[in-house]
Amino acid sequence: MHLFYTPDIASGSAHYFLNEEESKHCIRVLRLTVGDNVQLIDGKGGFYAARIKDAHPKRTILDIISVTQEYQKRNHHLHIAVAPTKNIERLEWFLEKATEIGIDEVSLIICHRSERKEARVDRLNRIITSAVKQSIKAYHPVLNEAIPYDKFLARNFDGQKFIAHCADGEKADISSVLQPAGKYCILIGPEGDFTETEIAAALSCDFKPITLGTSRLRTETAALEACFEVNFLNR
Amino acid sequence: MHLFYTPDIASGSAHYFLNEEESKHCIRVLRLTVGDNVQLIDGKGGFYAARIKDAHPKRTILDIISVTQEYQKRNHHLHIAVAPTKNIERLEWFLEKATEIGIDEVSLIICHRSERKEARVDRLNRIITSAVKQSIKAYHPVLNEAIPYDKFLARNFDGQKFIAHCADGEKADISSVLQPAGKYCILIGPEGDFTETEIAAALSCDFKPITLGTSRLRTETAALEACFEVNFLNR
Repeated sequence: MHLFYTPDIASGSAHYFLNEEESKHCIRVLRLTVGDNVQLIDGKGGFYAARIKDAHPKRTILDIISVTQEYQKRNHHLHIAVAPTKNIERLEWFLEKATEIGIDEVSLIICHRSERKEARVDRLNRIITSAVKQSIKAYHPVLNEAIPYDKFLARNFDGQKFIAHCADGEKADISSVLQPAGKYCILIGPEGDFTETEIAAALSCDFKPITLGTSRLRTETAALEACFEVNFLNR
Repeated sequence: MHLFYTPDIASGSAHYFLNEEESKHCIRVLRLTVGDNVQLIDGKGGFYAARIKDAHPKRTILDIISVTQEYQKRNHHLHIAVAPTKNIERLEWFLEKATEIGIDEVSLIICHRSERKEARVDRLNRIITSAVKQSIKAYHPVLNEAIPYDKFLARNFDGQKFIAHCADGEKADISSVLQPAGKYCILIGPEGDFTETEIAAALSCDFKPITLGTSRLRTETAALEACFEVNFLNR
């Protein structure tokens, strides 16, 4: 399967022109030629079957053969807000794995104990796109720019809201409180966890405290555990 | 918490001598001194509270204050046999994450489509040990040397045996077949998956085919997903 990510494709169009970089990859690297089949995903649920009409190395023209909308659409919507890890590779790893397992939106939150205050969303998005193609996802997860934790809490969310923290206090196992086929927003703190103030602020915004099991997990592992649990409980 | 991995500690001993490397780390790096508290894990379930008796930078002497055996012992035993990934870093992060989440034994199996035929177990074990300390696990997962797939199948396993493959055929969702608080052995194939012959060989050895959901997962993600699911279903 030769898959191209084409977010700009117009649904209903009979043709598509690969850009210069993708044309070169298609013709020079993959050595595809006229009549070969390729697949396109638009990141919004569209999965296209296409065929090479003109094998131009800079402006390859494709005939669109068929399109499937809402390709492998999941029955729920998962939004994880996570503090960028000090070592950015750990966040990159989470984004790749969460994309494979299934996630819709990721927000980067800067918390009181965050050692990293910024993250390059363009670079992180390329990692997500490559995971989207590798795992053949028609939906491209949305990655939001890093914002301060309190600004994030000030946003409005519909659906179920959870905060996973390591401080003491009563917490539910997500399997006992999650309503299937819903919308979810889950907060994951930085190395060193949320502060008591940050936890209180989340609770006052109706985020329900949850536990992700008894193991002590790194930030990126906790975020992936949450992603796994939500997908598993929605199977 | 200052945690040291001391697999050679004799249960019942009143003292322990940190080796030269750990003594240096304890006294020169952490700058601990006489009377300071440290913790020891033996990798076999023993969690020790200790106190520095002699802050010698090459041969630190510890008083053992108390010991907890079977510290956070899990109610099940998970053995995952996975083909080493072409990019060894992917296997390394699986080992780190599986250790955090909970795993007992990992075997490296060389399959027909394995691009990597070997792996340095000593180096991989150091990654496991560091995850053991970071996540405060008293049990150190066992990592076995890489062996050919058919040799691995020839071994005897008690408990439930599963194979996760991507080929067609009837597969159970692990949640519908896993018996809680049991022993499990799960086979995860290489990039490109097991061959039909390898799958048939596993089935003839009573490995039950399972699915890990509808997403197309990389080798290391599939192995971690299996680890997630077994731990989750045993909560």
